[in-house]
Amino acid sequence: MLLVGDRQDSQSYVKNKKKAAIEVGFHVVDVHLPDTVTQEELLAEVKKLNDDPEVHGILVQLPLPEHIKEATVLKSIRVDKDADGFAAENVGNLCLKGGDAPLAVPCTPAGCVELLQRSGVKVAGKSATVLGRSNLNGMPMAQMLLSMDATVTTCHSKTENIEQYLRNADIVVAAIGKAEFLRGAWLKPGCVVIDVGINSIDDDTKKAGYRLVGDVKFDEAMGVASAITPVPGGVGPMTIAMLLRNTLSLARQSAGLDRLPLRRDVPVA
Amino acid sequence: MLLVGDRQDSQSYVKNKKKAAIEVGFHVVDVHLPDTVTQEELLAEVKKLNDDPEVHGILVQLPLPEHIKEATVLKSIRVDKDADGFAAENVGNLCLKGGDAPLAVPCTPAGCVELLQRSGVKVAGKSATVLGRSNLNGMPMAQMLLSMDATVTTCHSKTENIEQYLRNADIVVAAIGKAEFLRGAWLKPGCVVIDVGINSIDDDTKKAGYRLVGDVKFDEAMGVASAITPVPGGVGPMTIAMLLRNTLSLARQSAGLDRLPLRRDVPVA
Repeated sequence: MLLVGDRQDSQSYVKNKKKAAIEVGFHVVDVHLPDTVTQEELLAEVKKLNDDPEVHGILVQLPLPEHIKEATVLKSIRVDKDADGFAAENVGNLCLKGGDAPLAVPCTPAGCVELLQRSGVKVAGKSATVLGRSNLNGMPMAQMLLSMDATVTTCHSKTENIEQYLRNADIVVAAIGKAEFLRGAWLKPGCVVIDVGINSIDDDTKKAGYRLVGDVKFDEAMGVASAITPVPGGVGPMTIAMLLRNTLSLARQSAGLDRLPLRRDVPVA
Repeated sequence: MLLVGDRQDSQSYVKNKKKAAIEVGFHVVDVHLPDTVTQEELLAEVKKLNDDPEVHGILVQLPLPEHIKEATVLKSIRVDKDADGFAAENVGNLCLKGGDAPLAVPCTPAGCVELLQRSGVKVAGKSATVLGRSNLNGMPMAQMLLSMDATVTTCHSKTENIEQYLRNADIVVAAIGKAEFLRGAWLKPGCVVIDVGINSIDDDTKKAGYRLVGDVKFDEAMGVASAITPVPGGVGPMTIAMLLRNTLSLARQSAGLDRLPLRRDVPVA
């Protein structure tokens, strides 16, 4: 597994991912590049690791500096080393029915699915509302819930009267990056809430001067939902676990072994 | 453009597509294969046309006979000749934001978008419900409406109490293949209804003994919706037009020219 990234704001993500990878015994190549790196230099680093048979999964830690085209860099990662599941071919195969299983799937929504399945939440036939439509979270999350037979509504920044889409939702996934946006009163009693957001808000009572909160007003939602993920400590660790899982699956494929199943109720890919 | 297909039930589709392609001056290669064709023979035909520089778009008319793996055949079409927009890479690029525009997009939902835009229907901020999640229709339709800033709900065969998702929908796309399933009373007054379904039902008053109807109970919906597409004659011709459009766009790209824009409000790809 490769981690590329040295941006100030993603340092701790890189550190956590690296730590987890080392803990499970992965060979980790950690490429630190300064914020001033050119796109060509970054692409050259990716190419080196594309060509390295010892590396089975490549992750470029986002966000990238503004002068670098994120899509171009992500596209340069070999599909069979796409540890993040962001490649167009993998996304297409996630959406298409009856074709090839994607080689890897976006880690955060995959972690949400694992949480749902591990907790015994019934998804088929349920109403699910996803707040957010990003490439990383909302879009693949909606596709995964749909493939598990939920009826899925995707809300986003242009959605008017967002509450109307939450009132009857059995499963709510919040991934819009707005601190404590979702209020308890909007939720259906007994629903399941997955909070993907990680936002820092000022807090003078903390030594650091801030604390991390999700996209959901946790205390309010606690009283309404039947299950809810905390922030931090809920979805975050799952994202890392799924990243390791994607990488293991890619390594297995590279070694000619069966890949891992995409989730608990589907056969091995 | 190539049309591969000779199944009894898709004969008229093939005929209509071929006719339209010839009318606009396309070079058409029409490969008829019997229902008994082997998968290898069919793949060999596709390969021949993949390799033919005179052919810019390939369409394998579905459905295929049961002994042939549809996904394998569709996957064998070169992405830059994928006139139907079914390739995983094209689907992925349709779903991903900020990356490459897909080389082609599924024709029926693209036709629905053209109908909406041509008719001046405001989509951004509106509530859209798509009935169906197929590779051909529902799934890409939902993605396109989402990319136009609608809030999108996808319903399907496992959806319980489907009416609740229609009550507040400003735009309804029905693509489930159930004759006259959607009732007028389920609709929000003034909504826009796009009926993708084409189903034949027995009708003794017709010479043929049947007539074609959509997924919507047309007479009922007429009285509630502000706009509705008829069946036949609504979405069907748009599908063919978009197929020609995809092919033209692929041919332009092959000739080093700008591709066509994906829809009216986006820049040239």
